[in-house]
Amino acid sequence: MATPVKVYGPPISTAVSRVLACILEKDVQFQLIPVNMSKGEHKKPDFLKIQPFGQVPAFQDDNISLFESRAICRYICEKYADKGNKGLYGTNPLARASIDQWLEAEGQSFNPPSSALVFQLAFAPRMKLKQDQVVIKQNEEKLRKVLDIYEKRLGDSQFLAGDEFSLADLSHLPNSHYLMSAADTRDLFTSRKNVERWWDEISSRDSWKKVVELHKSP
Amino acid sequence: MATPVKVYGPPISTAVSRVLACILEKDVQFQLIPVNMSKGEHKKPDFLKIQPFGQVPAFQDDNISLFESRAICRYICEKYADKGNKGLYGTNPLARASIDQWLEAEGQSFNPPSSALVFQLAFAPRMKLKQDQVVIKQNEEKLRKVLDIYEKRLGDSQFLAGDEFSLADLSHLPNSHYLMSAADTRDLFTSRKNVERWWDEISSRDSWKKVVELHKSP
Ligand SMILES: N[C@@H](CCC(=O)N[C@@H](CS)C(=O)NCC(=O)O)C(=O)O
Ligand SMILES: N[C@@H](CCC(=O)N[C@@H](CS)C(=O)NCC(=O)O)C(=O)O
Repeated sequence: MATPVKVYGPPISTAVSRVLACILEKDVQFQLIPVNMSKGEHKKPDFLKIQPFGQVPAFQDDNISLFESRAICRYICEKYADKGNKGLYGTNPLARASIDQWLEAEGQSFNPPSSALVFQLAFAPRMKLKQDQVVIKQNEEKLRKVLDIYEKRLGDSQFLAGDEFSLADLSHLPNSHYLMSAADTRDLFTSRKNVERWWDEISSRDSWKKVVELHKSP
Repeated sequence: MATPVKVYGPPISTAVSRVLACILEKDVQFQLIPVNMSKGEHKKPDFLKIQPFGQVPAFQDDNISLFESRAICRYICEKYADKGNKGLYGTNPLARASIDQWLEAEGQSFNPPSSALVFQLAFAPRMKLKQDQVVIKQNEEKLRKVLDIYEKRLGDSQFLAGDEFSLADLSHLPNSHYLMSAADTRDLFTSRKNVERWWDEISSRDSWKKVVELHKSP
């Protein structure tokens, strides 16, 4: 049997969830290695050797150690091309280019406002930090503009990169999941009919349901 | 003769420069198509058809139209694999994974503070906008932390992704170029010996010198 790949970090972290969703789509065996962030384990010398920015996730497979969730996802799709969802990262150069384009749009345009909102709305309360209403308003405004563009795009094609679910859609799941749990940001999605349809489709995949189950593990 | 690829946008834009540096490394014929940003041409319906976020660059080749500078660079490296610098995006899966990792580090960790600084230090004065000293200080602090990590990494390997110049290094050129022109931010680079050595190496490539020449075109 193949040695499982190793994922370091708690599943409730959005960047860890992104990698887990990809691994589950690709049906790759994995082992979750806890990193106790409340004890600052992610800033300790041993962890910094595999993730120099002191963030989760870190990832290991046979002869490689990687960080950056989107780079890890690309690697998994390449290395395990024949396993699980074979179209996740495209099956020809044009499809791949479109996936890379929307994966970059996620990383560059969707992620900055949405991760700021996830922190304010979902994590600040758990950490007993005060929410910053100015930051919330500013980032809702930025996210609204991005979702207007998605609404139009998702009127032309079923998924962001084309008519198949891909890594580009998958990469939006972790932040969107938390945004769907807060009334104000949920509304940003459900008030846009194509975005809502898209969210319903991508969040009901088995891979994502399993990630949400993993969020509940201690 | 092959039809040249089309790049829409002014070369002085950092994201346009990133694509041009890649095209020149790969020795691909290109045509620059002006977009008059001071007249708001990048927000007009015709341009939004090829770049829905209303930003530059947009890119076209035979049967594909793309946006997002880093996705365009990946596409160029794949499509023109046999031209110019053949190792730019790696020649094996492990090399490629390392390049993707550091290209993501650029997009996620280096770009946010450095592009905020480029705007404040290089573009705000040209646009006769007042510089925001709080934004400058905050982003210098963030960039300092990123460059500390690079300093360590560049002590272990000649370039970010390994011992060859790659797309990961190239992607840092546009923002770094502007940061090297302002005394305070120049110091962030030159006070770190490995970062300075790396900057000297990557900025003296012919491809980049040609991009800097293009900055001077009207
Ligand atoms: N660009 C990185 C971001 C990783 C990231 O921001 N991780 C967060 C948790 S979701 C973290 O470790 N935060 C702790 C910190 O930055 O100190 C990736 O995609 O892997
Ligand atoms: N993530 C995009 C960013 C593009 C971008 O920020 N372009 C800037 C010029 S460097 C722009 O068009 N700014 C005008 C605007 O946002 O309205 C890419 O890498 O292509």
